[in-house]
Amino acid sequence: MKTVVILVNPKYGGNLGAIARNMMNFNVSELRIVGNSDILDNDAYIRAVHAKDILKNAKFYKSLSNAVSDIDVTVATTGAVSGDRNIKRIPITPRELAKNQKENEGTLGIVFGREDDGLKNEDVELCDILVSVPTSEKYPIMNLSHAVSVILYEIYYESVSSDIPYNLRMKNASKIEKEMLLRFFNEFVDISNAVPEYRKEICKTIFKRIVGRAFISGKEANSLICVFKKTDLK
Amino acid sequence: MKTVVILVNPKYGGNLGAIARNMMNFNVSELRIVGNSDILDNDAYIRAVHAKDILKNAKFYKSLSNAVSDIDVTVATTGAVSGDRNIKRIPITPRELAKNQKENEGTLGIVFGREDDGLKNEDVELCDILVSVPTSEKYPIMNLSHAVSVILYEIYYESVSSDIPYNLRMKNASKIEKEMLLRFFNEFVDISNAVPEYRKEICKTIFKRIVGRAFISGKEANSLICVFKKTDLK
Repeated sequence: MKTVVILVNPKYGGNLGAIARNMMNFNVSELRIVGNSDILDNDAYIRAVHAKDILKNAKFYKSLSNAVSDIDVTVATTGAVSGDRNIKRIPITPRELAKNQKENEGTLGIVFGREDDGLKNEDVELCDILVSVPTSEKYPIMNLSHAVSVILYEIYYESVSSDIPYNLRMKNASKIEKEMLLRFFNEFVDISNAVPEYRKEICKTIFKRIVGRAFISGKEANSLICVFKKTDLK
Repeated sequence: MKTVVILVNPKYGGNLGAIARNMMNFNVSELRIVGNSDILDNDAYIRAVHAKDILKNAKFYKSLSNAVSDIDVTVATTGAVSGDRNIKRIPITPRELAKNQKENEGTLGIVFGREDDGLKNEDVELCDILVSVPTSEKYPIMNLSHAVSVILYEIYYESVSSDIPYNLRMKNASKIEKEMLLRFFNEFVDISNAVPEYRKEICKTIFKRIVGRAFISGKEANSLICVFKKTDLK
């Protein structure tokens, strides 16, 4: 599995440097930034210490959808659980993410929002999964670089603890397999008389989130496609 | 269990501020510093954000042995495994520490050394346990505040996952119970004809480390004391 860190409009170069260092501590090398390369200032390079190459090789994008277009599994991160049109999105913990993604043979993109603001709802909705680091209600919001470090640590730790027998591993669905499944599901919902018009969008959203959280395997995705492919509904 | 963070001669106020914030993120409030209060500079207060009280309430000590005199279980941290007179001390992971210390009804002190230098051997020897965060050999040394955050996170996470049945919990030995055990063991070694003179110190050191790593319970400590209390050796 290849892990990619994606930062959306980060504010402080110092945090970027610390993030680069944490990435190297936990064997992650690819950094993508939605924003301007000005952010890579002196502070960034100083705080990166021996991880300066990660900053030098960082790629820049104009939007998050561009930045994740080739990523198989995308993970939005949040310091707080927030709702989208009253549908609360349930975050999983970094540990659950790490255990589930261990057998991902594609790419895993972890998306972090701007310091103080976090990710916008529409950016969260672009992602398969929502992750939140369990913190005390006394001060739930972590510094950006420390949140990155805890999440990358969990993923790294899981990768070095080898205890899943090969036969229990399921091959995670790729981005394309999931998109196909969602497309067939959405078409199914569209032509269904069973789902009232005003509920169709919500159903599609919920199903998309469940597919993300369940770490659906390629086989499961392909099997479900057959279910929704039936067109003799009307 | 009450967790205390102990920093030995920290160098950068910014790291201290970040540490205070991480402490509050993970419900730890007591900070002890071996060193001078000058370290609490503007950077420290800026980076602490909403955790300034932790800095204001920090206690200062002249030596590590003073700082840990009332702590039941002390944990030294290291970025690298190093030896003491060729006896490699085996570190445990933060997760193993968290799982074992979950039922500690006393105080747990986590000791961090100076940025760039780490802890001196004699400071490590003062502690019961050695912990190291698993990192990539590409860049094994974490920034001080990030190492703190990963360790406090593991302890916090364990405290909010309640899955140990009450009857399986063992009451950890207190500092006094362990000191008594070590004292009787050391006296036993001193008067023993079986242990050659030049090996007595090493045996005492090894036993002390084992007692620390094993998270010995109060009952176990008290039982072992009887074993070593026998004085009819000569």
